[in-house]
Amino acid sequence: MTLPNSNSIATSLPLYNFSGGVGLLPPTVISEAQQAILEVPGTRISALVINHRSQLCRDILDETEKNLRTLLTIPDNYHILFLQGGASLQFSMIPMNLWVNKNQPVDYLVSGYWSSKAIKEAEIEKKNVNIIWNGKAQKFVRVPRPDEYQIDPDAAYVHYYSNETVEGLQFENPLETGDIPLVCDMSSDFLAKPIDISKYALIYAHAQKNIGAAGVTVVIIRDDLLECIPDNIPTILDYRPHVEMKSIYNTPPIFAIYVVLLVTRWLLNDIGGLTNMAQQSQHKAALLYKAIDESQGFYRGHAQVDSRSLINVVFNLATPNLERQFIETAERLGIIGLEGHRSLGGIRASLYNSMPVEGALYLQNFMLEFQQQFKGQQQ
Amino acid sequence: MTLPNSNSIATSLPLYNFSGGVGLLPPTVISEAQQAILEVPGTRISALVINHRSQLCRDILDETEKNLRTLLTIPDNYHILFLQGGASLQFSMIPMNLWVNKNQPVDYLVSGYWSSKAIKEAEIEKKNVNIIWNGKAQKFVRVPRPDEYQIDPDAAYVHYYSNETVEGLQFENPLETGDIPLVCDMSSDFLAKPIDISKYALIYAHAQKNIGAAGVTVVIIRDDLLECIPDNIPTILDYRPHVEMKSIYNTPPIFAIYVVLLVTRWLLNDIGGLTNMAQQSQHKAALLYKAIDESQGFYRGHAQVDSRSLINVVFNLATPNLERQFIETAERLGIIGLEGHRSLGGIRASLYNSMPVEGALYLQNFMLEFQQQFKGQQQ
Repeated sequence: MTLPNSNSIATSLPLYNFSGGVGLLPPTVISEAQQAILEVPGTRISALVINHRSQLCRDILDETEKNLRTLLTIPDNYHILFLQGGASLQFSMIPMNLWVNKNQPVDYLVSGYWSSKAIKEAEIEKKNVNIIWNGKAQKFVRVPRPDEYQIDPDAAYVHYYSNETVEGLQFENPLETGDIPLVCDMSSDFLAKPIDISKYALIYAHAQKNIGAAGVTVVIIRDDLLECIPDNIPTILDYRPHVEMKSIYNTPPIFAIYVVLLVTRWLLNDIGGLTNMAQQSQHKAALLYKAIDESQGFYRGHAQVDSRSLINVVFNLATPNLERQFIETAERLGIIGLEGHRSLGGIRASLYNSMPVEGALYLQNFMLEFQQQFKGQQQ
Repeated sequence: MTLPNSNSIATSLPLYNFSGGVGLLPPTVISEAQQAILEVPGTRISALVINHRSQLCRDILDETEKNLRTLLTIPDNYHILFLQGGASLQFSMIPMNLWVNKNQPVDYLVSGYWSSKAIKEAEIEKKNVNIIWNGKAQKFVRVPRPDEYQIDPDAAYVHYYSNETVEGLQFENPLETGDIPLVCDMSSDFLAKPIDISKYALIYAHAQKNIGAAGVTVVIIRDDLLECIPDNIPTILDYRPHVEMKSIYNTPPIFAIYVVLLVTRWLLNDIGGLTNMAQQSQHKAALLYKAIDESQGFYRGHAQVDSRSLINVVFNLATPNLERQFIETAERLGIIGLEGHRSLGGIRASLYNSMPVEGALYLQNFMLEFQQQFKGQQQ
């Protein structure tokens, strides 16, 4: 690789998008989605105009659900929903549905930008949200050890975010909450590794990072949680009608769901399941952390080593100027989306499921070259 | 046309989908959407993975907004939002945002299945929803004349549905409400004809009938309504952050919005604007109503003549048996989606914007042939 001097991306270069907000999709999914716009194979119907009361719609929802159950070994006492509104709507639906007795506390763990946002919406329900741990004073450089937070035995539920995309922090294991329902925003590492569903009461994940395109959010909810939902919340924000109507309470975003179906097929048939996916994920992250750790301080990782995310690799260079140069040079080589989140700055390389190992290798190679050329400027 | 005896649709036949729930898309939009899955022209980025903080996302939103302003002559004091959750979420957001003083009444007009549904969600906010007219006793066969309903001068707003898709009823003109804000669900006739935006305070329309694919809902809201929204509603259900962030408060369903963009381009460039669209719409509806009116009672229109919808043509045959035969025979000729809504039964032929005139002609022709063959069975 030779660093370019020109100002434009040569169209012959590969293009790797490391954006944190929205992930890539595998080429096979792109090509099958393209085909489905014309016709869902064998149906003469475009996936953009599927009637939500048709058998075709039901078949698509059923296969997507079945594939998710297979990939994650989801037990029968969990329902799988395909909803609109993103994780942001779940920030509100969760307290509306699950915080029934407002004399009970709810426990939230604050490990970064996004888990903080979730709390604001719970506080709209009632002010006394209980924060069981807060990494803010340490500038969100790590997640807590289990002995650092204490679950209130009366809590209606405990909420946390398994992978903080902005700061690049990841929990290796679910929080230990005993009988208290554990609610997890898994938007950025859902389907990136096998998990033990039985540890959770509710999992939610928007599609646009690991499992599809923006416009649909997967919610996995344990059956017993449905028993206590209050009756006075807006119907569309109540989990029960979505469970009863099997995600067709109103017209679902069927094309977005179809893309999730294609991704689940890819995970099952091309990748061979989540154990394999997790291996790829570890491999990709190791490439970038190696470049950081062996850079003698040229690249400075944001997260403490034991809290590092395998999904979002966040780091700084010596100065904002050098970071800008890093981003611009990378872009000219077809490496895009490296800007850190606007709240934090710096560099963020996101390694969602669809980023191929070659992409991480290409970026690692670039990091080495860039360091070689600019190491004199690191002070 | 010869009526078929076989049980399968020959794949050489045209396929016309008259479904009421989800409309078609023009062939040019299908083909451009297909292209965009691979690459939004000139960008090397798939429309499925556009980052919501990128200039490309902003450009797509801005052009879609500009096209809507051109098509509908939308004044500057109206905001245009692209939201998730369908019309069903608007049923709740409207009272949450606009029914500020609960001592004020809100006025709802009940002209059919869908306007009834909207009321249930307003009643979750407070029980005293004021029903200014209700067509239920007459089995929803017509919309009211202006002298049949009275607006409460203290009402926070008036809500109605401009085209009842289940019963096939349409208001020719907006309700006359003077200074009281008029809120209109326009999901099924949005962009089907020119309208005078200044008559409305808020218009909402999900995309899947006339303007795109399921997954995005357009909201047009007059600026002064934003001033009174209460501060204690969930952020994502508050119109203001969506206005402030120009529809990027959270990750928007960008591919669904891209399809709306393609439809607005088609309306501007291929159709030549909404006056032309309205002419097509009238022409298509006239073909089917002619077949009904000249059938000597073989086909029985549901709506009174002066309330007939140009969008959803709803009718019965003499017996449910004959209706089933009608639907099944039509399917074998490539005419699908004719089942009436599950709440009403009978036949419904929906003529959303993308149904070509040839489709309506093909169905008219089939209606004549079917009548000819089965007219002996009408008792």
